[in-house]
Amino acid sequence: MIYPKVALIGLGLIGGSFSLAAKRAGLVGHVAGHARTAETRETALRLGLCDSVHATAAEAAKDADLVLLCVPMGAMAAVAEEIAPVLKPGATVSDVGSVKGPILEAVAPFIPAGVHLIPGHPLAGTEHSGPEAGFAELFENRWVILTPPEDADAAAVQRLSDCWEGCGAHVDTMDPAHHDLVLAVTSHVPHLIAYTMVGVADDMRRVTQSEVIKYSAAGFRDFTRIAASDPTMWRDVFLTNKQATLEILGRFTEELFALQRAIRTEDGPQLFDYFTRTRAIRRGIVQAGQDTAAPDFGRSAAGKKT
Amino acid sequence: MIYPKVALIGLGLIGGSFSLAAKRAGLVGHVAGHARTAETRETALRLGLCDSVHATAAEAAKDADLVLLCVPMGAMAAVAEEIAPVLKPGATVSDVGSVKGPILEAVAPFIPAGVHLIPGHPLAGTEHSGPEAGFAELFENRWVILTPPEDADAAAVQRLSDCWEGCGAHVDTMDPAHHDLVLAVTSHVPHLIAYTMVGVADDMRRVTQSEVIKYSAAGFRDFTRIAASDPTMWRDVFLTNKQATLEILGRFTEELFALQRAIRTEDGPQLFDYFTRTRAIRRGIVQAGQDTAAPDFGRSAAGKKT
Ligand SMILES: NC(=O)c1ccc[n+]([C@@H]2O[C@H](COP(=O)([O-])OP(=O)(O)OC[C@H]3O[C@@H](n4cnc5c(N)ncnc54)[C@H](OP(=O)(O)O)[C@@H]3O)[C@@H](O)[C@H]2O)c1
Ligand SMILES: NC(=O)c1ccc[n+]([C@@H]2O[C@H](COP(=O)([O-])OP(=O)(O)OC[C@H]3O[C@@H](n4cnc5c(N)ncnc54)[C@H](OP(=O)(O)O)[C@@H]3O)[C@@H](O)[C@H]2O)c1
Repeated sequence: MIYPKVALIGLGLIGGSFSLAAKRAGLVGHVAGHARTAETRETALRLGLCDSVHATAAEAAKDADLVLLCVPMGAMAAVAEEIAPVLKPGATVSDVGSVKGPILEAVAPFIPAGVHLIPGHPLAGTEHSGPEAGFAELFENRWVILTPPEDADAAAVQRLSDCWEGCGAHVDTMDPAHHDLVLAVTSHVPHLIAYTMVGVADDMRRVTQSEVIKYSAAGFRDFTRIAASDPTMWRDVFLTNKQATLEILGRFTEELFALQRAIRTEDGPQLFDYFTRTRAIRRGIVQAGQDTAAPDFGRSAAGKKT
Repeated sequence: MIYPKVALIGLGLIGGSFSLAAKRAGLVGHVAGHARTAETRETALRLGLCDSVHATAAEAAKDADLVLLCVPMGAMAAVAEEIAPVLKPGATVSDVGSVKGPILEAVAPFIPAGVHLIPGHPLAGTEHSGPEAGFAELFENRWVILTPPEDADAAAVQRLSDCWEGCGAHVDTMDPAHHDLVLAVTSHVPHLIAYTMVGVADDMRRVTQSEVIKYSAAGFRDFTRIAASDPTMWRDVFLTNKQATLEILGRFTEELFALQRAIRTEDGPQLFDYFTRTRAIRRGIVQAGQDTAAPDFGRSAAGKKT
């Protein structure tokens, strides 16, 4: 056991999945939970995500060895301020927010000396949210990025890293600003683009929505899954990771205009070269075990079970 | 049996899958195949995609009741010209090209009177190509769009429609120009955007390729699958469907700039509203049976089998 008592603040997809994974692996003892609404707290108790639930974050955080903030990013600072007075010396405070630099800046001022603040971000999720969406396998073979401050306690970082590895994840540490840039490329801008494309389809008058839905299998379908993600979370992502998002968006539109020009001028060789270059990255991802090589993601295999 | 003799010109993913599906359902008799290289022809024979293979398209097309053109779009016109003299009166010529208006214009002049030209497009595919990529289930529960000319023979259209339905597909008919606009929205522009985003990631100096690969699960992964599609096919798509692609791209960049502005001005409510609106389309697609509602496309379920 790594943490005899854990306080989970936020009992949705990520918080719930962490609890199920960590309990199953015997990494944690008592899990005390808090969520904003009584309904979520009761659901979490019923589903066994928590051993006890509390009406305030501070009550849950009392005596905890690990306090894990799993609330929307916009709520992190207020929660940190609330729990600060009750934090036990030697405790670890971590979070799962999708952006790291600005969160660290907002939360750090409230954390008392003697408490280890070690922000983190599990690169795992689905398009569902809430306590019922959680499942113990969510982090298996996925990455968790920790962004400890330079003077962080090495033993505390190791404990948190061991805990995530026990949940099935691989762990990396990184500078917060670099995390935010990498994620702008691999996650934030792809999401913005998918939202935009789905919005365009929704707006068309000459192409009906039923046509878009019927014929989605040809590529658009993957965009709609991405664009079905939680609006609160993604609003917070773009508001907090503004700088890196705008930088990568700038590069994206630059490249898109170059390809648009190649289409307009019917420059076949340029299009062919561009489309060839991008295949190599896909091979790398499949080799790294981050996706299945099965056609269509193995959708047909999974579908057959239902 | 619908077609006693079929000529398949092009023995790759689509041609091979059609043959396997149609043979399994007893819809076709003898399948005579042609591909550009002897290697592909031999592979197709060995895999049972064809009953006979031929060094020229004209030899394969002789006496065929259905000639199905499954070659890259850039090769369609030349093949049509070559087979024209041998086409049997009453035969049907169809194709599977991803763009319909320009293909119809290029192919139609060669088709003699008394032969039924009924272009088609199966909305099914994977990121793999070649004869080994084919499988009989590819068209199951997918749409095939036929774009018959206004004066097409109703019985011939019905036969082709029955054949595709026998392969497991649903069939719609549509005006070719409308097909090309709908597909620009649901397929062509999404592919261009995915290619662009993967290209941006590939170009970054401050974010290494191994970082992009490791952390791809957060959204980017779906783009890389799309951007791993066949470069020849996609070059042809953009060269042939130039007009609709540029129109939809224009709308896309307009919307993207609006969202970019909302990020720059930190307009949370606008972002939230936009991200909420796009969720409805996803629900429609899942309800229409065009995708699984399982988290992550059921990837974990499929993965467990391997
Ligand atoms: N979803 C993903 O794909 C993903 C991936 C990686 C990281 N993350 C990060 O994980 C965090 C949570 O995401 P999630 O997907 O788990 O969200 P979720 O399923 O919507 O759960 C959020 C939880 O936080 C609670 N909450 C909201 N505001 C609160 C407040 N002011 N005080 C206390 N509790 C509050 C909610 O309670 P009620 O139900 O009572 O409102 C709910 O239990 C976010 O910071 C996000 O950036 C998400
Ligand atoms: N892949 C998709 O997702 C998808 C979806 C819907 C429609 N389509 C359409 O289907 C068609 C074929 O695509 P595919 O994915 O099946 O391609 P593929 O797997 O690469 O197969 C193409 C086949 O055409 C042959 N070929 C190429 N040039 C030829 C020529 N000049 N004369 C005779 N044969 C030639 C190739 O022979 P060799 O192997 O000997 O070169 C190969 O057998 C394209 O028009 C595409 O627009 C594709």
